[in-house]
Amino acid sequence: MGGLPSHVYLKEVGPRDGLQNESQWISTDDKVAWINMLSETGFREIEYSSFVHPKMIPALKDAREVGRRIRRKEGVTYSALVPNMKGLEHALEAGIDGASVFMSASETHNLKNINKSIDETYPVLSEVIQEAKHAGKEVTGYVSTVFDCPYEGRIAVEDVLRVCDQLIASGVDYLSLGDTIGTAVPSQVEALLEGLASYFSKDKLILHFHDTRGMAIANIMTSLHMGITRFDSTVGGLGGCPYAPGAAGNVATNDVLYLLNGLGIETGISEKRIQEASIYIQNKLGTTLPSRSVAYLKNA
Amino acid sequence: MGGLPSHVYLKEVGPRDGLQNESQWISTDDKVAWINMLSETGFREIEYSSFVHPKMIPALKDAREVGRRIRRKEGVTYSALVPNMKGLEHALEAGIDGASVFMSASETHNLKNINKSIDETYPVLSEVIQEAKHAGKEVTGYVSTVFDCPYEGRIAVEDVLRVCDQLIASGVDYLSLGDTIGTAVPSQVEALLEGLASYFSKDKLILHFHDTRGMAIANIMTSLHMGITRFDSTVGGLGGCPYAPGAAGNVATNDVLYLLNGLGIETGISEKRIQEASIYIQNKLGTTLPSRSVAYLKNA
Repeated sequence: MGGLPSHVYLKEVGPRDGLQNESQWISTDDKVAWINMLSETGFREIEYSSFVHPKMIPALKDAREVGRRIRRKEGVTYSALVPNMKGLEHALEAGIDGASVFMSASETHNLKNINKSIDETYPVLSEVIQEAKHAGKEVTGYVSTVFDCPYEGRIAVEDVLRVCDQLIASGVDYLSLGDTIGTAVPSQVEALLEGLASYFSKDKLILHFHDTRGMAIANIMTSLHMGITRFDSTVGGLGGCPYAPGAAGNVATNDVLYLLNGLGIETGISEKRIQEASIYIQNKLGTTLPSRSVAYLKNA
Repeated sequence: MGGLPSHVYLKEVGPRDGLQNESQWISTDDKVAWINMLSETGFREIEYSSFVHPKMIPALKDAREVGRRIRRKEGVTYSALVPNMKGLEHALEAGIDGASVFMSASETHNLKNINKSIDETYPVLSEVIQEAKHAGKEVTGYVSTVFDCPYEGRIAVEDVLRVCDQLIASGVDYLSLGDTIGTAVPSQVEALLEGLASYFSKDKLILHFHDTRGMAIANIMTSLHMGITRFDSTVGGLGGCPYAPGAAGNVATNDVLYLLNGLGIETGISEKRIQEASIYIQNKLGTTLPSRSVAYLKNA
C-alpha cells in the first residue's frame, strides 16, 4: 500500500484523557504501578495526569503525587495537561517534560468547558505556553471539537484554522486535533487536513480520535494517507463516558497498534505489553474496556 | 472526498451469519418478527437462514418454518445459505429469491468446515449452483478466509483467485469475499482487490468483514476507494463467537451505515429502523451487541 509513513509516534493519554472520563476511582498506588507498566511498553510519550483543579476532575486529584512517584524511563517524555499558571506551577514541581494546554474550536464548547470565550482563552494559554517554553518544556495545544460540536454541530475548517494559528503563534510545538465526540468520518478528516496543509507542517499535527461511533481506525487510516504520523490513544480504549456505558472512549492503543503493525508501520511499541497494561487497568476498573483486541486476546 | 461510489448495496446477513454464531436460541416467532422488521428498514437483500443440516447449526434448525412464515416485501431479495442439493430442495420449498453456496480459499479451513478438499467441493457446489440458476435464483458464492486462515495463516491472492475463478465458471452471480476471522488490515484488502481486478468485474464482488479486531470499517473504506459497492453486515454487529465473549461478529450494519451516510453515499436504509431492529434482537439475546452505535444511541 503506497503513500504511508514508515514510522508513527503514538502518545498514550490513558492516564489523563482515559481516567478523567471513567467513573471509577483508581488509587494513586495503582496509577503509579500502571504508568510504570506503560513506561516499559515502548511509548516515547505518556500524558500521565492533569493539573486542573481537583474539584473539576476528582479522578485526577492526585496528579502531583503521581508525578512525584512514577519511575521515569530514559527516552520517554512525561507530559501533563495544564489549564493555567497555577496548574503549570504544580506540574513543574511534580516534574514534566511536556505541557499540554487545551481549548475548543467551537465557541459554545469552549465556553461550557473553560467558562471563557475563545478570545478570552488565548491570553491565558499564551502565558502558560510561554512560561512552559521558558522552563524548557515541549508544549502541545489540544484543540477540541475540530469536526463536530455537541452544541453547534459541524465546525468550519476556518474556525479550526483560526484557533490553530493562534496557538502556533503563541509558541506551541504541536497541535492535537480532537474529534472530541467521536463523530467524524474519513471525508471530514481529509477536508480538515487539506484545509490545514498549506498553513502547518504535518509534523506538527497530532490526531486525537474518540471511537464513539467506531470510525476512529478508518479516520486514522485516512490521516496516514494524508501524511500524519502522530496520534493520541489510550490502552484498551479507556475513557468511555460514564453516562453512556458501552460507548467507547479514545481510540484504543491496541487497535491502532494492530493496524500499524499490519501495515508494516513501525512504532517501537510491544503489543504484548500493551495487552498486559490493558488487562491491568481493566481489572482495576472492574469493567470491560471497549478495545476489540482486548476482548479478543483475553478470550483467545 | 473523491473516488467514492454514489450508492452502496448492503446485504443483511444477521439472521444467518449473525444468529449461527450466537449461543442463544431465538424462537421461530421472534426470528419471523425480527426479519419482518428488517424487511421494513430499506434493505434490498436479507439472508434469512441457512439450510444446512439442523445438527450442524441448531440455532437455524427452523429455516424451513422461518422461510414459510416471513412476510415478503416487494423489492427485497430473500436469500439463504445452501450447502448441498438437499439444502437447496428445502430452501426452494420454503421460498428463496437467492441461494448462497460457500467454500474456503484455505485448503485446511475448507476441510475442517466442509469435510472435503477444495477440489472435492467444486462438483458439489457446481450442481447446486446450476440447479439454483435453473430455478431462476440469483446465486452468491461465499469464499471464506480470503485474507488469513486460523490454520494456515496468510492466504495467497492466487489461492483466492483460483477458487473465485471456479465459482464464476460454475455460474455464481456474485462472489462474497470473507475476512472470516477478522484479521485483515487495509493493505491486505487493497492487495486482494488489485489481484482480482483484472479477472472479475467489481460489480460482482461483495466484501464480507468480521470486526474481531476493529478493522472492518477501515477495510470497508479501502474497499470503497477500490470501487466496491456491495457489503455484507449484521445489525448490531451480531455474531460474536460464543467462545469469546466481547469479541465482535460481523461488521455492524449500524456502523457501516453511519460511515456511508457521513460520506454521502446512498443506501436507501433507515438508520432509525436499523437501530430498532438492533435493540429488538439485543433484548431477545439478553446481551450487549458490539456495535458502537447501538451502545451509543441506546444511552444517548
